[in-house]
Amino acid sequence: MSLVIVGSVAFDTVETPSARRERIVGGSCTHCALAASYFTRPKIVGVVGEDFPAETLAFLRRRRIDLKGLNVVPGGKTFFWQGRYGPDPNERETVQLDVNVFADFNPEIPPSYRNAETVFLANIDPDLQEAILRQVRRPRLTAMDTINHWIQNKREALLRVLREVDILFANDEEIRLLTGERNLIAAGRRVLDMGPRYVALKKGEHGAMVFGRDFFFGIVSHPCGEVVDPTGAGDSFAGGFLGYLDARKTLSAMAIKRAAAYGSVMASFTIEDFGIDRFRTLRKSEVEARFAAFRRMAAF
Amino acid sequence: MSLVIVGSVAFDTVETPSARRERIVGGSCTHCALAASYFTRPKIVGVVGEDFPAETLAFLRRRRIDLKGLNVVPGGKTFFWQGRYGPDPNERETVQLDVNVFADFNPEIPPSYRNAETVFLANIDPDLQEAILRQVRRPRLTAMDTINHWIQNKREALLRVLREVDILFANDEEIRLLTGERNLIAAGRRVLDMGPRYVALKKGEHGAMVFGRDFFFGIVSHPCGEVVDPTGAGDSFAGGFLGYLDARKTLSAMAIKRAAAYGSVMASFTIEDFGIDRFRTLRKSEVEARFAAFRRMAAF
Repeated sequence: MSLVIVGSVAFDTVETPSARRERIVGGSCTHCALAASYFTRPKIVGVVGEDFPAETLAFLRRRRIDLKGLNVVPGGKTFFWQGRYGPDPNERETVQLDVNVFADFNPEIPPSYRNAETVFLANIDPDLQEAILRQVRRPRLTAMDTINHWIQNKREALLRVLREVDILFANDEEIRLLTGERNLIAAGRRVLDMGPRYVALKKGEHGAMVFGRDFFFGIVSHPCGEVVDPTGAGDSFAGGFLGYLDARKTLSAMAIKRAAAYGSVMASFTIEDFGIDRFRTLRKSEVEARFAAFRRMAAF
Repeated sequence: MSLVIVGSVAFDTVETPSARRERIVGGSCTHCALAASYFTRPKIVGVVGEDFPAETLAFLRRRRIDLKGLNVVPGGKTFFWQGRYGPDPNERETVQLDVNVFADFNPEIPPSYRNAETVFLANIDPDLQEAILRQVRRPRLTAMDTINHWIQNKREALLRVLREVDILFANDEEIRLLTGERNLIAAGRRVLDMGPRYVALKKGEHGAMVFGRDFFFGIVSHPCGEVVDPTGAGDSFAGGFLGYLDARKTLSAMAIKRAAAYGSVMASFTIEDFGIDRFRTLRKSEVEARFAAFRRMAAF
């Protein structure tokens, strides 16, 4: 059991209608790895600058996340994102983006990662995603995420990667842009013709759906009366989803449903605090208790 | 088992991005009663003009809907609504509204309706909703729907009715306007303090949620790749929900969940055709098959 995650490790400045946090630790890779760490041993591939806090690295190691593939660039500055959420936590605006050391990010997979059973290509340039796939030997399961930027500006490369992966993680807007379909059900099904076996559609407060050939699963979000910080919810969803599947070693319909439910549970914890803070205290027993309650709720 | 439904019986002109239908039969009462007719014997209270088609009345009777409480005003014209849907079927605009005979609607419950076990006050003036409640003897279950117009213009009357009913049916916008809460989970819980035991939140393509004291249930919508006409989906949801509960005679947590699932199934059929047309061919076996598939889908 081993899950390699490639993506951003970052500083985020987050504004919500009620609060603001400056330069807290974020990044798709970080959130995903932390969420996955409750199920499996994630190995991350990414890059940070010398300004990245040693305390965070120590925390990630305590969560048994393998950092061999995390490159620390001497004198470099870590990727920085600043975003603002409106009253609807599903909507956000990027205020500032400094790619910094990410500009020259050319991910290299450490030899000890090459036999990974599961590989997640978080949101990065699809050319890099493709390069990663060339460096791993026969993973059992591959998945990718992306954003509107690549769908608009690197469509061909993106479609190439899409043909090779098993699962696409995307949100409403992305899946509509990718397919030109407004109806989410039609859009989800349409993506299956582009290659992947499954499409995991993240709908924020409205839950998630998973489309497959002869397979559909929909789940509402765990009811959350106060979203503190939506950042990282989608990456935590992917982390819980793939961490669970990596540990389970099956792609049965039931495993896919439970993966989506665990993904949803991990996202529901992430948004309870800023950045990665909820993971600092979250115990596996809390994850299991929420999953069990969620499962009871959903059955009728 | 008997379900009294009070609301509008109407003509609708419906425009969707791909089609337009002139003066087809609609109305909250009509949709709700048709959906409920798959579970129980609905009795409707409403008013139409002389222009209302005898064919439709015959069809409602064939579905074993009791029309004793449907007043036909000699020389009168039936309530007319014209609406336009954008690409997002959750959003609609009222183009024209002629209340016609509905202007003097003063609902009177036929004596044979007075022992109804279940009463649904579909969207009408809350003063009329209150008057109805005074005319029925101890129903086991009462429910209401409303719209923004009454929340804004008849808040006090609405709050009085709300204190007396067991279930409020509302959509996102209405529940936010009623409570001043943007977060739907917080809003749903807040309504419970206003009186009802349950709040059924209709979220269109995103499914539905039911809030109760120590109770929460969320369900996605049945996956529909092409919404033909969203009109009546919410009323069909309420019809399936209440029709099922009226037949089941229990308000156990499981019964409420299944009621919501049946509501969701009935709504999913309604939107497959214009107006009430899907009900013309829909068989109970199709309802049960979709419910069973929905239930298997949701379990994990």
